[in-house]
Amino acid sequence: MKKRKLDPKYNFFAAPHPTVVAGTFVNNKPTYTTLGDFGILCAYPLHVYIASVHTHYLNIGIKENMTFSVNIPNPDNLVKTDYVGIVSGHKTDKSKVFDFFVGDLKTAPMIDEFPITMECEVHDIKRVGRNDVFMAKVKNIYADKECLENGDINMDKVNPITLFMDLTYRTIGKTVGISYQVGKNFKPSQ
Amino acid sequence: MKKRKLDPKYNFFAAPHPTVVAGTFVNNKPTYTTLGDFGILCAYPLHVYIASVHTHYLNIGIKENMTFSVNIPNPDNLVKTDYVGIVSGHKTDKSKVFDFFVGDLKTAPMIDEFPITMECEVHDIKRVGRNDVFMAKVKNIYADKECLENGDINMDKVNPITLFMDLTYRTIGKTVGISYQVGKNFKPSQ
Repeated sequence: MKKRKLDPKYNFFAAPHPTVVAGTFVNNKPTYTTLGDFGILCAYPLHVYIASVHTHYLNIGIKENMTFSVNIPNPDNLVKTDYVGIVSGHKTDKSKVFDFFVGDLKTAPMIDEFPITMECEVHDIKRVGRNDVFMAKVKNIYADKECLENGDINMDKVNPITLFMDLTYRTIGKTVGISYQVGKNFKPSQ
Repeated sequence: MKKRKLDPKYNFFAAPHPTVVAGTFVNNKPTYTTLGDFGILCAYPLHVYIASVHTHYLNIGIKENMTFSVNIPNPDNLVKTDYVGIVSGHKTDKSKVFDFFVGDLKTAPMIDEFPITMECEVHDIKRVGRNDVFMAKVKNIYADKECLENGDINMDKVNPITLFMDLTYRTIGKTVGISYQVGKNFKPSQ
């Protein structure tokens, strides 16, 4: 074993995160924060989670509304995306940073200038360490028409951003294989 | 609103996933499966989740051992990574696909040829749709020495893989900004 054993520190976590902006309403105004801790809990039907430090302003609204939005930026949206993760909603009104619309859930502000946004309905809240983990069913996804091709999403047109623990935001790179295909080239030794 | 409203289908989910291989022991043999549904639940202390279809062979071992490993591949490992996601442990012995080692938890097989691996201790299992969501504390992280630079992880040396719902595996791309920095360029309109 040529590996070095490390403490389970956040900055040793070497997987790519998605970069997203979560939104909700607090006191009838939208508020947002940047998150990397977002992912799928179930694909069919589609359930996701976000994790956010329990003291965050965002959490107040999610607990009240039991809804949130997840907004997927591209590099054109990066300055605003990072901004809403730097300033706290407790001190700063972020309601005018983005143009938004609401969907069926009414209380999940979806960012119009981002290529993809989704509205989510919370069904469970679990405290893990210092975070509230909000588990939710995705109610609807909204996509810029420019990102759609033959009724499906073209990921290169979405051009989402990844986030790493070295604090770099990165684009997606080149395709190195197709899932459920490239593995067929494996020849077991026996 | 120039967006199109879409059903919350899996293939409309446009965020990047990490590509990882989860491992456990079933009947004293390691078994593995490829997952994109993996993420951080809390950064300090480090807690993660993986979600895996409840009927998967992997789940039997995780429930018995209450541990799993998360192994982060790079493009050199892609064929084997995809292979263990194509074949089912119910039918195929995957114990010899990878060289592995065990750490403090003893029952989480960590893949030696991947740049980063971690051993995780399950504290909660939640059923969401067809998936078991395993929530766990990261006990230790193990990194190839070649991925370390001044005691920290160099992400370009790890070279992890993202996975998209269009079934492409992709490398990470170019840096477009630094987190907690680029947002300082935002000037609120009032």
